[in-house]
Amino acid sequence: MTPEDALAAAAVHAWTTHVDCAAKLFSPLTDAQLREAVAPGRNRLIYLYGHLIGVHVAILPLLGIGDRLHPEYDAVFVQEPDGPAVESFAAAQLRQAWGEVHDALLAGFTRFTAAEWTARHNAVSEADFALNPLRNRLAVLLNRTNHLAYHLGQAALART
Amino acid sequence: MTPEDALAAAAVHAWTTHVDCAAKLFSPLTDAQLREAVAPGRNRLIYLYGHLIGVHVAILPLLGIGDRLHPEYDAVFVQEPDGPAVESFAAAQLRQAWGEVHDALLAGFTRFTAAEWTARHNAVSEADFALNPLRNRLAVLLNRTNHLAYHLGQAALART
Repeated sequence: MTPEDALAAAAVHAWTTHVDCAAKLFSPLTDAQLREAVAPGRNRLIYLYGHLIGVHVAILPLLGIGDRLHPEYDAVFVQEPDGPAVESFAAAQLRQAWGEVHDALLAGFTRFTAAEWTARHNAVSEADFALNPLRNRLAVLLNRTNHLAYHLGQAALART
Repeated sequence: MTPEDALAAAAVHAWTTHVDCAAKLFSPLTDAQLREAVAPGRNRLIYLYGHLIGVHVAILPLLGIGDRLHPEYDAVFVQEPDGPAVESFAAAQLRQAWGEVHDALLAGFTRFTAAEWTARHNAVSEADFALNPLRNRLAVLLNRTNHLAYHLGQAALART
C-alpha cells in the first residue's frame, strides 16, 4: 500500500467506525425513545438522527458521488432547529434513509483514488482551490466524521 | 504539494481546528464555571478539560514525539471517572498544561513527512503492523481528533 493510499484508507476507516457506532446507537430506538432529549431543553435524539442523515446526503453531490438522496431531510433537520416538524418522521423511515445514504457514500468513498481524495470538492472554485489546496475531498470526509463524533457524544448522554 | 502531503496536511488542519475550538470553549472559564456539569448527573467541564489533556499527553510517546508531559492527569482524568480528585486542579493550571501539550504536539505533527504519518505507532508491534497497516500514526491523529470532537459536543451543551 502506498503512503497516500494508506492515508486515505485510514480516513475512510475512521468514517465507517463512527457510522457503525451511530447506527448501533440510533437504529434500535423506538419512536418513543427517539423523542428523548440528550439533556433537558436540548435536541432530541430524533433530531440528531435526522440531522446526521441530512448532512450526510449532501456529501453525495459535494464529492461528485451522485445526486442528493432524500432532500426532505434538509429543510426539517438542517435548515431548522428541533421542532414539531421532525415528529412526522418515523423510526423505520429514518433507519431506511440512514442505510441508503451510508451505502451510497461508502460505495463512492471506496472508489476514490488518493489523487481523487486530494482533488477539490464541488463547493470550491478552481481559483479558490489553487489558493487553498486543503479544500479537498478528504477535508470534507474528515470534517463530516468529526461532526458525526460531536453529535454522537451528545446522543450518548441520553443512551448510556 | 504531493497527494500524500495534502492528505496529511488536511488531517493536521482538522486537529488544529478542533484544538482551537476547545481552547476557545474551556480557557475563558473560571474555577466555578468549570464545575458545571454538561447535563444533570454527567461529567463536569473540569473533568472533560483534564480528560482531553490526559489523553493528548499520551500521544507524545505514542507517536515518538517526546516524553509524556504532565503524567499526573492520567490517574485522575483518564483512569478514573469524574470525582472529588479533579477539584485539586485549578483553571490556571489546566490552561497552562493545555498550552504546553498542544504546542509540543503541533511541533511534532508539522515535522512528520507523509511516510512518517503512515508508519506504525509505538503501541503496535512490527508483526501486527504488517497484518494491519491502518494502525499508523495518522490513524491515531484521526482517532484523537474524533475523540476531541465527541467531548466538545458534550461540553457545548453546558456553554451554549
